[in-house]
Amino acid sequence: MATVHKINEDLVKERQKCTFNVQELTYLLDGGEEVTKERREFENILRNVKELQDEVPEVYLSHKERYENAVRKTCILQNVRNDFEKKREVLSPRNIFRAGYAVIKDVSPFFLHNGMFVPTIIGQGTPEQQAEWLPKAKAMAIIGTYAQTELGHGTFIRGLETTATYDAKTEEFILNSPKVTSYKWWPGGLGTTVNHCITVAQLYINGKKYGIHPFIVQIRDLETHKPLPGIKVGEIGPKMGFATANNGFLGFQNFRIPRKNMLMKNAQVLKDGTFVKGMNEKLTYGTMVMVRVNIVSDSAFHTAMAATIAVRYAAVRHQSQLKAKEPEVQIIDYLTQQHKLFIAIATSHAFSNTYTWLYQAYLKVVEDLGKQKQDHLPELHALSCCLKATSSRDAGVIVEQCRLACGGHGYMASSNLPIIYGYTTAAITYEGEHTVLLLQTARYLMKAWMSALEGKVLAPSVAYLVDWLKSDKQRWQNTPEVIVKGFQHVAAGKIKDAFDAIQKHVKAGKDYEDAWNLASVQLIKASEAHSRAILCDGYLRETVRTSSSVSPSLAKVLNHLVQLYIVYWTLETAGDLLVYSNIGKDDIAVLKEKYEELLALIRPNAVGLVDAFDISDEILQSTLGSYDGRVYERLMEEAMKSPLNKEPVNQSFHKYLKPFIKKAKL
Amino acid sequence: MATVHKINEDLVKERQKCTFNVQELTYLLDGGEEVTKERREFENILRNVKELQDEVPEVYLSHKERYENAVRKTCILQNVRNDFEKKREVLSPRNIFRAGYAVIKDVSPFFLHNGMFVPTIIGQGTPEQQAEWLPKAKAMAIIGTYAQTELGHGTFIRGLETTATYDAKTEEFILNSPKVTSYKWWPGGLGTTVNHCITVAQLYINGKKYGIHPFIVQIRDLETHKPLPGIKVGEIGPKMGFATANNGFLGFQNFRIPRKNMLMKNAQVLKDGTFVKGMNEKLTYGTMVMVRVNIVSDSAFHTAMAATIAVRYAAVRHQSQLKAKEPEVQIIDYLTQQHKLFIAIATSHAFSNTYTWLYQAYLKVVEDLGKQKQDHLPELHALSCCLKATSSRDAGVIVEQCRLACGGHGYMASSNLPIIYGYTTAAITYEGEHTVLLLQTARYLMKAWMSALEGKVLAPSVAYLVDWLKSDKQRWQNTPEVIVKGFQHVAAGKIKDAFDAIQKHVKAGKDYEDAWNLASVQLIKASEAHSRAILCDGYLRETVRTSSSVSPSLAKVLNHLVQLYIVYWTLETAGDLLVYSNIGKDDIAVLKEKYEELLALIRPNAVGLVDAFDISDEILQSTLGSYDGRVYERLMEEAMKSPLNKEPVNQSFHKYLKPFIKKAKL
Repeated sequence: MATVHKINEDLVKERQKCTFNVQELTYLLDGGEEVTKERREFENILRNVKELQDEVPEVYLSHKERYENAVRKTCILQNVRNDFEKKREVLSPRNIFRAGYAVIKDVSPFFLHNGMFVPTIIGQGTPEQQAEWLPKAKAMAIIGTYAQTELGHGTFIRGLETTATYDAKTEEFILNSPKVTSYKWWPGGLGTTVNHCITVAQLYINGKKYGIHPFIVQIRDLETHKPLPGIKVGEIGPKMGFATANNGFLGFQNFRIPRKNMLMKNAQVLKDGTFVKGMNEKLTYGTMVMVRVNIVSDSAFHTAMAATIAVRYAAVRHQSQLKAKEPEVQIIDYLTQQHKLFIAIATSHAFSNTYTWLYQAYLKVVEDLGKQKQDHLPELHALSCCLKATSSRDAGVIVEQCRLACGGHGYMASSNLPIIYGYTTAAITYEGEHTVLLLQTARYLMKAWMSALEGKVLAPSVAYLVDWLKSDKQRWQNTPEVIVKGFQHVAAGKIKDAFDAIQKHVKAGKDYEDAWNLASVQLIKASEAHSRAILCDGYLRETVRTSSSVSPSLAKVLNHLVQLYIVYWTLETAGDLLVYSNIGKDDIAVLKEKYEELLALIRPNAVGLVDAFDISDEILQSTLGSYDGRVYERLMEEAMKSPLNKEPVNQSFHKYLKPFIKKAKL
Repeated sequence: MATVHKINEDLVKERQKCTFNVQELTYLLDGGEEVTKERREFENILRNVKELQDEVPEVYLSHKERYENAVRKTCILQNVRNDFEKKREVLSPRNIFRAGYAVIKDVSPFFLHNGMFVPTIIGQGTPEQQAEWLPKAKAMAIIGTYAQTELGHGTFIRGLETTATYDAKTEEFILNSPKVTSYKWWPGGLGTTVNHCITVAQLYINGKKYGIHPFIVQIRDLETHKPLPGIKVGEIGPKMGFATANNGFLGFQNFRIPRKNMLMKNAQVLKDGTFVKGMNEKLTYGTMVMVRVNIVSDSAFHTAMAATIAVRYAAVRHQSQLKAKEPEVQIIDYLTQQHKLFIAIATSHAFSNTYTWLYQAYLKVVEDLGKQKQDHLPELHALSCCLKATSSRDAGVIVEQCRLACGGHGYMASSNLPIIYGYTTAAITYEGEHTVLLLQTARYLMKAWMSALEGKVLAPSVAYLVDWLKSDKQRWQNTPEVIVKGFQHVAAGKIKDAFDAIQKHVKAGKDYEDAWNLASVQLIKASEAHSRAILCDGYLRETVRTSSSVSPSLAKVLNHLVQLYIVYWTLETAGDLLVYSNIGKDDIAVLKEKYEELLALIRPNAVGLVDAFDISDEILQSTLGSYDGRVYERLMEEAMKSPLNKEPVNQSFHKYLKPFIKKAKL
């Protein structure tokens, strides 16, 4: 279809330099050769659907046109996907989802249908409710979203204001949004796309409040798509990203739904208004934890996208001379550039590896919950909170670092880096606000510290607290294993400090809650240090584990990356290590040199490493990052698509500029 | 004009709590009561120009419509501004410029006309050239921009590829863009707005290259606005921000301009092609330094905008309970929130104070240059590089911190925080890329260190190197003055380390240039540490200086802010201080408590402090940050302006969704 262009010579040379088998790493990152092949097959199908090609790039459309185009493409994409999935059990739904980037480029107005509406019916509906709604939802005969957040309340869901008042006479719930702050706000697709949603509301029966529960609500007529009487719905307007997600608002005025529309797998309301408390409330944690675990994987992918663009661009771009009379050098040869970019590659690997073990832990907990065992849930919950928080934040920082490393061209929308940042940074807030999640983990850490002081056995992820209490600190060595212990010492030290700070305030007469607030900056830092220790420990373990099953040449490269990650964070947090571990100033000086050596070792493999992420040009959507490296030609070709470049003179000249200039004429 | 609404009750209470006179601080920040009054007067005039009100918010327009609307408003704004400036000598051109935000919201397509085109004619044109071009340019009978950067070259301007070949026969220069990478790329307004530009090109005479020089070039017909033959010009497409700046590209094909169009204040080309070298090449530094100094002031303003929005929102927003059964608290009462926001206020003050002394230093150097004295130019150049780099970077980080502190609502375009980030982050790259500038300062620091070792007297901003070499480190005390010395010790230590790293590589046989590259990560860190020491030292000195001339209640608050700034950075860089200064672990523990005390002291004044920035609602353009605190109402009002909310059902339902759903129907 597209003209085949010559590959940029610098990229050809870079690929020749590579010391490992790129394909082998792709298979490893994907989770197996079959998964890679399936992904490529689906991407290839999409590539050949002509109607999915935009005539005018979306960035030139108005907000409304862009939405309409997204609905058009989303419907086609969903049909293609359904056909593909009908033929087989897909190996990796996330790979299929990822391919969708090639079509929607940003976020689809359907994304919460598959991502939250269907899973919530499964997770919270009774078998009868599932039988009623699930086939329709899965076939997309109805399209839904998940409406929880309100204008006035986000992560603190107990404060939600939407009410569902039971009317035993008619066996209905009456939904209301008492104030402007009670309006639902944010659900994707809610604006003008969906006809159903799950609404989370405060349940009232006979004037008594029974807390928040999920209800399934039809909001638009299926034939006319008009909002039903009593429904006020619309879109919330433009955002930093999520241009086509069609985020919406929703208010209720005495809107009645049948009793059976409350999802009753847990709590129930009987016909006569009797409230039956749920037995399995912990079950509802399942979906929430899963979504957070998935964000670690998203963070890996977004970091990989940014790294791919910035590394390829740095190989193609020549700028300035290292020495007079020599040609301008590839900017990837500047140590400062390597410092910005190679950590991006390593970070994506760190998150992929973390996701691997964390997802296994999640599956184990789900299995346990089925057997009424909940022992590992608190630990998993604490891990998913801080790892979601830290991975999304790190990804945001790294994506911006990659963008800035592309200089002015990284600021072009056609580099795709601004759009990648738009959705990466959203993850810092959605599905649990960053600071709130770190504090949730901190609560777990405070309890763990108490248990450690009491000599109890701790969960594996906090077992280092016991070691730290028991042993003298070991002699420092600049090995990855000892450094990871060092990070654990930092975490333990900060956990202790935060704990002591709370105690101090309590002793001075403060309530525990006030003391907690006064210590909360320290609690955040403890939680962050814990995350870093977990990330480094898990990444190192996973690398050691996989190294035995891959070729020696690949194992070597993976080892460079994990070392880079650990040494990078040692240098970034040297102050903490000096305070809380046995590291000495001389060790830090040695590690600075080690870090520079690692950059030099990774240098020849940089392009191979980003090639191994195997992100197709259609998904990457970047003038700077394409596989063939035609950076300048693509920048110009994309610019020529601007409607302003399709006419010799824009009308604003005649209407405004010319009269303005004439007026000024001397 | 607008309906007057009741002020949010929380904001009323916050304003009552304030312990200082807000107006007094506004006057201080503006540089005097008259300046404030003039600013308000001009803002008030703009407020009442009806044609400047948008019917549909720009975010809903297409790229092209948005541009056309910006041209419309820019012409009106310029006329209003011209009228205002005709009547008087304005006290602060920057204040007048700032008011323009209320009209354009983003960046005007004229911004480089006033910002670069006119100043370059002044700075680089001969008196005859000024007589020819300046009156027309100032009256805007011609509209211009400054075209330097190319697709293939940015900060490394020696590498520019556009050629200007002198033809003595016709007394003309022939301009050419030999390759795609030679196209000019980025100049604001170049796309479809301007009819002139200054073009920087490599001069060739009789086959010999004479380096880069500025030429004034007409690119469009003044009557028809059509590009002249031999000119290929257009716009470069959408970016992360600068939506209406109309950044463009420009290529030349044997385009001829008269000899007199080379700006010849410095170098000259005589009729016969004789090249006369410039005597005052250093003069061209002047504009560049000035632009960078101004970016410190821009950083202060953008930080103030973000702080105003986030602090007011944090006072209005209630979320979660500190204690069961108590009402939900204002989020500004969470210590973690104070930690994110109060540093934003202090940072804006730090940059304002830095700008004050740096601008004075700049004026002194300009005065000296007029007397052929250049002694202070290298120091000022080094200062302007690292302070531009550090202030723009810090501002970017702080603006994002403020945005994220507003949770999901900060992600809404209507909060204006995404747009503020868009232009704040651009400054990290434009007018000298961040890393390149830090390395330029590092070159100065390496020379300074050599001089220090040789016992020479150093310039004031690096005199601390001599102190550091001479004296034993003084005993640590947790006072601002001693901490600032600590920052200087960190800078000195890192400068020494970087210097030693270069020497080590040289001794191991590397060329100096390779050694420099190998040490460049350390050089960057040295330059950053130097910046921080300069920022803290200057901020502290300026605060001490002004404190004597303001009321005691205000002096007290200013003192809290500067202490907060210094303690914040002490804790952020504690590791460096532990390595390079005499600070002890116990001192750090004490400073953590001090930091929490300072947050508590600033808390009652937080809203007053952002009110004192005196940024009108029209300039702030934020649903979250308006003076009256009607956050939720404004969010909803803005959403209702979406064209998607002006129709009951969007056409995409009938065209795409309905067929899709019907197909799926069970």
